Amino acid sequence: MKELQINPTNHWLSRYQSVRQATERLCDTLKTEDFNLQATAFTSPVKWHLAHTTWFFETFILKELVPTYTVFNSSFHHLFNSYYNSVGNPFARPNRGLLSRPTLNDVWEYRKYIDNVMAELSTEFTQTPEFEQRFALGLNHEQQHQELILTDIKYNFFQNPLFPSFYQPNKSIEANSSSTSRSLNNNSGKQWITFDKTESLLGHNEKGFCFDNELPQHTRTLTAFGMSNSLVTNDDWLQFMGDGGYSNPLLWLSDGWQWVQQNNINAPLYWLKKQHQWDHFTLSGLVPVEKAQPVRHISFYEADAFATWAGFRLPTEFEWEYYARECLKAEPHQANDLFGKVWQWSASSYSPYPGFKAAQGALGEYNGKFMCNQMVLRGSSQYTPDGHSRITYRNFFYPQDRWQLSGLRLAKDLT
Amino acid sequence: MKELQINPTNHWLSRYQSVRQATERLCDTLKTEDFNLQATAFTSPVKWHLAHTTWFFETFILKELVPTYTVFNSSFHHLFNSYYNSVGNPFARPNRGLLSRPTLNDVWEYRKYIDNVMAELSTEFTQTPEFEQRFALGLNHEQQHQELILTDIKYNFFQNPLFPSFYQPNKSIEANSSSTSRSLNNNSGKQWITFDKTESLLGHNEKGFCFDNELPQHTRTLTAFGMSNSLVTNDDWLQFMGDGGYSNPLLWLSDGWQWVQQNNINAPLYWLKKQHQWDHFTLSGLVPVEKAQPVRHISFYEADAFATWAGFRLPTEFEWEYYARECLKAEPHQANDLFGKVWQWSASSYSPYPGFKAAQGALGEYNGKFMCNQMVLRGSSQYTPDGHSRITYRNFFYPQDRWQLSGLRLAKDLT
Amino acid sequence: MKELQINPTNHWLSRYQSVRQATERLCDTLKTEDFNLQATAFTSPVKWHLAHTTWFFETFILKELVPTYTVFNSSFHHLFNSYYNSVGNPFARPNRGLLSRPTLNDVWEYRKYIDNVMAELSTEFTQTPEFEQRFALGLNHEQQHQELILTDIKYNFFQNPLFPSFYQPNKSIEANSSSTSRSLNNNSGKQWITFDKTESLLGHNEKGFCFDNELPQHTRTLTAFGMSNSLVTNDDWLQFMGDGGYSNPLLWLSDGWQWVQQNNINAPLYWLKKQHQWDHFTLSGLVPVEKAQPVRHISFYEADAFATWAGFRLPTEFEWEYYARECLKAEPHQANDLFGKVWQWSASSYSPYPGFKAAQGALGEYNGKFMCNQMVLRGSSQYTPDGHSRITYRNFFYPQDRWQLSGLRLAKDLT
Amino acid sequence: MKELQINPTNHWLSRYQSVRQATERLCDTLKTEDFNLQATAFTSPVKWHLAHTTWFFETFILKELVPTYTVFNSSFHHLFNSYYNSVGNPFARPNRGLLSRPTLNDVWEYRKYIDNVMAELSTEFTQTPEFEQRFALGLNHEQQHQELILTDIKYNFFQNPLFPSFYQPNKSIEANSSSTSRSLNNNSGKQWITFDKTESLLGHNEKGFCFDNELPQHTRTLTAFGMSNSLVTNDDWLQFMGDGGYSNPLLWLSDGWQWVQQNNINAPLYWLKKQHQWDHFTLSGLVPVEKAQPVRHISFYEADAFATWAGFRLPTEFEWEYYARECLKAEPHQANDLFGKVWQWSASSYSPYPGFKAAQGALGEYNGKFMCNQMVLRGSSQYTPDGHSRITYRNFFYPQDRWQLSGLRLAKDLT
Repeated sequence: MKELQINPTNHWLSRYQSVRQATERLCDTLKTEDFNLQATAFTSPVKWHLAHTTWFFETFILKELVPTYTVFNSSFHHLFNSYYNSVGNPFARPNRGLLSRPTLNDVWEYRKYIDNVMAELSTEFTQTPEFEQRFALGLNHEQQHQELILTDIKYNFFQNPLFPSFYQPNKSIEANSSSTSRSLNNNSGKQWITFDKTESLLGHNEKGFCFDNELPQHTRTLTAFGMSNSLVTNDDWLQFMGDGGYSNPLLWLSDGWQWVQQNNINAPLYWLKKQHQWDHFTLSGLVPVEKAQPVRHISFYEADAFATWAGFRLPTEFEWEYYARECLKAEPHQANDLFGKVWQWSASSYSPYPGFKAAQGALGEYNGKFMCNQMVLRGSSQYTPDGHSRITYRNFFYPQDRWQLSGLRLAKDLT
Repeated sequence: MKELQINPTNHWLSRYQSVRQATERLCDTLKTEDFNLQATAFTSPVKWHLAHTTWFFETFILKELVPTYTVFNSSFHHLFNSYYNSVGNPFARPNRGLLSRPTLNDVWEYRKYIDNVMAELSTEFTQTPEFEQRFALGLNHEQQHQELILTDIKYNFFQNPLFPSFYQPNKSIEANSSSTSRSLNNNSGKQWITFDKTESLLGHNEKGFCFDNELPQHTRTLTAFGMSNSLVTNDDWLQFMGDGGYSNPLLWLSDGWQWVQQNNINAPLYWLKKQHQWDHFTLSGLVPVEKAQPVRHISFYEADAFATWAGFRLPTEFEWEYYARECLKAEPHQANDLFGKVWQWSASSYSPYPGFKAAQGALGEYNGKFMCNQMVLRGSSQYTPDGHSRITYRNFFYPQDRWQLSGLRLAKDLT
Repeated sequence: MKELQINPTNHWLSRYQSVRQATERLCDTLKTEDFNLQATAFTSPVKWHLAHTTWFFETFILKELVPTYTVFNSSFHHLFNSYYNSVGNPFARPNRGLLSRPTLNDVWEYRKYIDNVMAELSTEFTQTPEFEQRFALGLNHEQQHQELILTDIKYNFFQNPLFPSFYQPNKSIEANSSSTSRSLNNNSGKQWITFDKTESLLGHNEKGFCFDNELPQHTRTLTAFGMSNSLVTNDDWLQFMGDGGYSNPLLWLSDGWQWVQQNNINAPLYWLKKQHQWDHFTLSGLVPVEKAQPVRHISFYEADAFATWAGFRLPTEFEWEYYARECLKAEPHQANDLFGKVWQWSASSYSPYPGFKAAQGALGEYNGKFMCNQMVLRGSSQYTPDGHSRITYRNFFYPQDRWQLSGLRLAKDLT
Repeated sequence: MKELQINPTNHWLSRYQSVRQATERLCDTLKTEDFNLQATAFTSPVKWHLAHTTWFFETFILKELVPTYTVFNSSFHHLFNSYYNSVGNPFARPNRGLLSRPTLNDVWEYRKYIDNVMAELSTEFTQTPEFEQRFALGLNHEQQHQELILTDIKYNFFQNPLFPSFYQPNKSIEANSSSTSRSLNNNSGKQWITFDKTESLLGHNEKGFCFDNELPQHTRTLTAFGMSNSLVTNDDWLQFMGDGGYSNPLLWLSDGWQWVQQNNINAPLYWLKKQHQWDHFTLSGLVPVEKAQPVRHISFYEADAFATWAGFRLPTEFEWEYYARECLKAEPHQANDLFGKVWQWSASSYSPYPGFKAAQGALGEYNGKFMCNQMVLRGSSQYTPDGHSRITYRNFFYPQDRWQLSGLRLAKDLT
C-alpha cells in the first residue's frame, strides 16, 4: 500500500520540489500539440493542469499570505481558476482547450516563476500554521491533478484513430502483467472476508494530512457483512457480458438502464471488439484485454448491475473503510488490492459526514459543494501517485463517469 | 396528522371502493381535453393515471392470482405499464400524452370492468397473504397517483396562458389561509427543538402497511442536533431572494448553481412577478403569494442554498424521522407541520437501508431501482391523500424537481 | 384534374359555407381526445386548425373591415395567431397541444359565432374589393388547413402503437387502388415528353385567385428538357432501396446524407418492415405498400437521391409549370398525374419571382417571409381539397419534411 | 480588381510553389498551439488546412496519375479527407481539433515530401490535359483554404479572452483605413446604377480556370433593376441597430427571426459593446468599429433584414454578375468595391445552372453536393488571395453563417 510518507525531517521545500517535478516528468513523452487537447468538458488539457496547479499555490499561498508577492500575469487569475467563485469568475470549463495562448512555454515560465518565489520564501511565511495547512493542500491538490493528467490524456488520445501511445514501449505500466487479480472463475485464493455487526469509528483522525471531507471522525453501526478479498476481473466481466448483462434491464438501476440505452453501452470504456477478442486502449496503446486484470473504466451503473447479476452488492464506503483497516491490521504488507490498482465504486452517495464543516474561505469550495449527485469511490488506482492513498480517502465521481480507473469489489449481507 | 386508518372490521372491498372513488372524484372539474395533457416527460396525463392504477390491480392481482380472469384489452398491457420491465416493454413515458386512443370513455370502461371483477372475487382468492399484500400495495399505489394527478394537472395547466383553475371557486383548498406557518421574521412560537446524541431505531416496524424501502428497521447513531419546529415560509423566502440568494454562487451546490444559471431560475416554480408583488399559480388559479404560508415548489438545490444562506442546514432523513417520532410522543395532536403541508427535502440521498431486500418479482421494481441520483423528502403535503402519511415514509425526487409540493425545515449541528 | 371552380353566379356566402362545412366534415370520425394531439412542432392539433382558420376571418375581415364587430373572446387573439407578428405575439407553436382550454366545444362555439356574423354581413361590407380579396384568401387559407388537418392527424396517429384509423373501413380513400401510376419497371405507357429550348411565360395571370407568391407573371428561358409523364412509384422506390440507395453517400446531397445518417432513414416515412414485405401507415391504418402507387412521404433529399440514382434529375418548378400547361393543352382530361396524387418536389428553392411584392400589412407575412431554406413542390395531392389546385401553385416545405404527401416526377437535360 | 493572372509563359511549377509558399507565409506569426484550434465544427485547425491541401494534390494527382508514387503515410488518407466519400470515409469534421498527432512537424514534412515529388514530376505526367485540369483545381483549392485559414483562426482566436492578434502590429491589414466605402448617410459619390430589362449571358466562358458550378454559360432574362455602387457600411449598420433592427420581427425572414431570438443576436459577429462605442475583433486584435468601412461578418438573415429595413432588397447573383461586368467595361480600374473588400450576399440560393454537370469521379463531390440550403455570395473579400477573384465566381454559405467576411450591396426593382 502506498501511504503518505511524512518524514518530519523532510524540509517542506524538498517535498514541494519533489511533487512539482513529478508532475513535469509525466509530460516527458508529450508533444506540444498534445498539451492542449480537450475532447470533452470533463477532461482538461495537460497545459491547463500544469497552469492550474501553479495557480493554486499562487492564489491561496502567495497572494493571500505573502504581501510582497508580485503577480506573474494578471490574466491568469481568470484563465486558470477551476471553480473557485469566491476569488473570481472562473473561465468556462468546456473551453479550456481553446486557449492556445498562453502557450506551453508561457506556462513553463509560469511554473518556474512560482517555483522560484516559493523557494525563496523566508521562514517568516513558511512557519505559520496557515502556510503549512495550505501548502499540504497544494501538494495533495497537485497530486490529484497528476492522476487527472493521465486519465485525461488517455481519454483525449483515444479520440485519435492513430491511438497514440503515452508510454514509450519499454516503459509500459499498463500492460504490466503483475497487476492481476483472482477471478470469480478461478477460485484459487478468492474468498469472502466476513464481519459481525459492529460499531466502527470512521473518518480521519487528523494525524497527518486529510481533506475536509474525511472529517469529522465519527461512529457508525455496521450490520454483519462479507467483503470479497479480490477485485472483479476482466474475466468476470466477460462472463457478465456473455450472459447478456448489458441487455437485461432487470439488472440495472433505472437511470443506469436509460444511460445504457441512450449511449449504446455494451462494454467498459476503451474496449474495442476485434473479431473474436477484445482489445482495450491503454496509455501504451491498443492491447488485448487480459482476463486476470481487474476490470476498470466502468461506471457506477455498470458496477451496480454487475453486482446484481452476481447476486451480491457494492459495499458502502463505511464497510470498505472498516474492511481496509482490518486487512491492514492483519496483513500490513499484502493488502488485498485495496490500493494501487483501481478505484472501487461504493454504494454510498457522496454526502457530508455528521458535523462536517467546509474549510473557511475559498478553500471551502474544494470539496463541499460537490456533495450531490456523485458516488464515493475508495482505494486508489495504478495512476494514483505514491503517497497519495489513504484508508479514509473519499474520491467521488458521477455515476456515469468512467474515464477514471474505476472498478469494483463485491460485498454481501450476512443474515 | 393523517395516519393510515386500518380498521380491522373494515372489509377490503369497501376500502378498495373508497380509494378508487377518491381518485375519480379528483376528476370532477376536468374537461375531456384536460385528461390527456402532458407538457413534459415527468408529468403524466390524468387519463394515463386512471388507466395505470387500474392496470396495476389487473397485472399484479388479477392476472397473477386469478386464473379465470379474462383480460379487458390486451393492448393495455403495453400502453399502461409505467416501468415494469419484468412484465413487458413499457410504452415510452414522454409519449403518454400522444395516446388519444384509448379514449377517456374507454378508460372509464376499463376501470368499471376491473372494479366489477374485483368486487366479485371469491374469498378463495382474497383471503391469501399474497392477495392481501398486493392489495394493500395497490391501494397505496393508487393514493400516490392521486397526489400525482394534482401535481401533474397543476404543471400542465400552468403551460396555458389562460391559467385554468382546477378547483371551483368555492372549493379552493390552496388559498386556504389556515395553512400558515411561523416565519423566521416573526419569531412568535418559532423555536429550535434540540436533541442530544442518541442511538435511534429507524425504519418501519412492519405493523401495518409500508413500502419495501422503509425496511428493515435498524439502528443509527445521531449526533446532537437541533430542528426547527416550523417550516420555512414564503416570507423567509422573499428575504432570501431580496438578499440576492439566486445570484450568489457561494450559497449553492456546484450542480445547483449550474442548474440556476442554465434555467434562469430566480424564484420558486409557479411564481410570477406582477409589478411589485409576486403571484403564484395554484389549483385555484393565479393568486398572490401569502407570506405566512410555507414555501413550496422549490428544488433540493434551492432548499440547500436557502439553508446555507440562513446559516443552517437541511436535516438528514434520519434526524427528521427521530424528530417526528419525538414530536408525536409529546404532542400527538399538534405535530409542528410534519404532515399535510409540504414535503420536506432532507439532506439524504435515496439509498437502500442496511439489509434492504427488494420485493420478489416485478414488484421489486417498485422502489429499489430508483435508489440513485434522488434525494429523500419526508412528511407529506396538502395534496397527499388522508391516511397515506407515515413517519417512516420515504418520498424521493431528483434534486432539480420542483413540481411537487416540496418545501423545507431547517436543522443545525449542536456542538 | 381539380380546378378551382369559380362560378360567377355563386354567391360568396354559399362558397363560404361550403368550405367551412368541408373542414368540419373532416372531423366526423375524430374523438374529442384526437383534436388536441401534437406530437411535434411541425404539426398542429386539429382543434387549433379549426380555431385558427376562424381567427383568420375574424382578424383580417371582421376586426379590420367591420367596425361594429364584437370580439368573441379576446384571449383567442393571442392563442390562435399562427405567425402574424404584425398583429401581435403568436402563441408558441410547439405548445399548441398543451391548450386543453379553450375546449373543443368552445372552439365549435367560436366557429358558429363567426359563421353567424359572416352570414349577416351587409353588402355594405361585402361588396368592397378589400373584402373580396381577403375573403378569397380566407377560403384558400382554410383549404390549406384542410389538407394540413389530414397530414397532421396522420402523423399524430402514427405515434400511437394502436395505429388508429381515421377513415371508416368502407370510406378508405388511401387504399384506393385506382390511384396507381406507371412504374419504371413496367414501361407500358411510361414515356419521356420532350421540349425544345423555349421562352416561357410563368406565374399567374391574375385572372381568378392566386397567392402573392405566384406573381408577377414573367418570362424565363428554359433549355431543352425532358419530363417523365409518370410519377415515381413504390415499385421504383423498392428498387432504389434494394440497390442500397439509402447507404450510398455518392447519391446524396451533403446535407441529405447527414440527415439520413443522423435519423437512420432507410425507407419513406410511415413504412414499416413486416418480415419480408413493407406495410405503410395510412389514414385507413396499416396496409401493405402497393407497388403501382406513386411513392409518397419522401423528403426532398430522398427525391434528389432517387433521381441521381436513376440517372436523371428533378425538374425545376418552371419546367414543371411549362410541362403542365402543355399537357393540359394537349389532353385537358387526362393530365398525367399532375394533380390529386402527390405533391412533386422540384429542384427549385422557394424564392421570390422577379418583381415580387408581398401584400400590404399583416397579410404580407402570409408567404414572403418563408422564402428561405425551403423547396418548391408543384401539383397537388390526394389530400388537397377539390378546387384548390392550380398550375401556378407553389407549395413549399423544408428539404427534410416528409409528413406531406410528397413524391416526385423525373426530368432530364436534352443536349 | 484582383483577376486570375494566367501567364502562359509561367511554368506550372513556379505557380505551384508560389501558391504553396503563400499558404505557409500565412503561418508566420502562429505558435504551435494555435495550429490545432477548432472551436466549432465549421472551422478547421490550421494544421488540418495545411495537411488537407497537400492531401488534395496527393490524392487527385499523385495517386491517380503517377503510378510510381509512394504514399507518405497511409493513415493520412483517412485523416485529411474532408468530404470525398468516393475515395474513402472522411475523418469526422467536428473532431479535427482532437488530432494532436500527426504533429505540426509531421505535417510540414508531409508538405515538403509532396512538394518534392511534385517538383520532380516528368513532363510525361505534367503535359496531359488531366494533369493540367486537376493541377489548376489544386491551386485554386489551396487558395480557398488560404482564405479559410484566416477566417478560421480569427474565429478561434476570438474564443480566447486575451484576444490574440494574428498580425504583427506593423502589418495590420484589417485596420487599413483605405478600405472605406460610401455610407448611406454620406451621400457623396453614392448612387444607384440602373439597368433596363435585358437578356444576359451568365456563367463562365471556359477561357481560363473556373469551378464546375460556374458552368454552363447560359442566358437569363433580367428585369429592370438598380444596384448601389457602394457597399453597406458600419455607419449604415449602426443606424439599422439604432432603429431597433434586431428587435423588429417584421424586418426578418421567418427562419432569420428564429435565429436572432435563439442566439440573442444584436450586432454583427465580433462586435463587442464597450460603454458607448462598439469595438470589433479583427486579426489585429480588438479595435474600434470604423464607420466608413463596409459592414462585415453578417449573416444572410441580417443582410436581408437590413435591405428590408432600408426599403430595398438584395440583388440576385445574376444581377450582381451583370452589374459587375458592366462596371468593369466602363471603368476597368475602379470597380465600385466589387472585389477585395467583402463577399456580398445575393438573394439567390445556391442551385445548379441549367445543364450543370458535376465533374466525373471524386472531384464531382467538390461543389455539386452542396447545392441545397446555402446562399450564393459574389465578389471577394480582403482575405481572398490575389488572383482568386472572378466575376462568375460563386461562393456559398448557409444563411446563418457569418464567420466569413460577408457584407452586402443593395439592389432595387425599377418599375
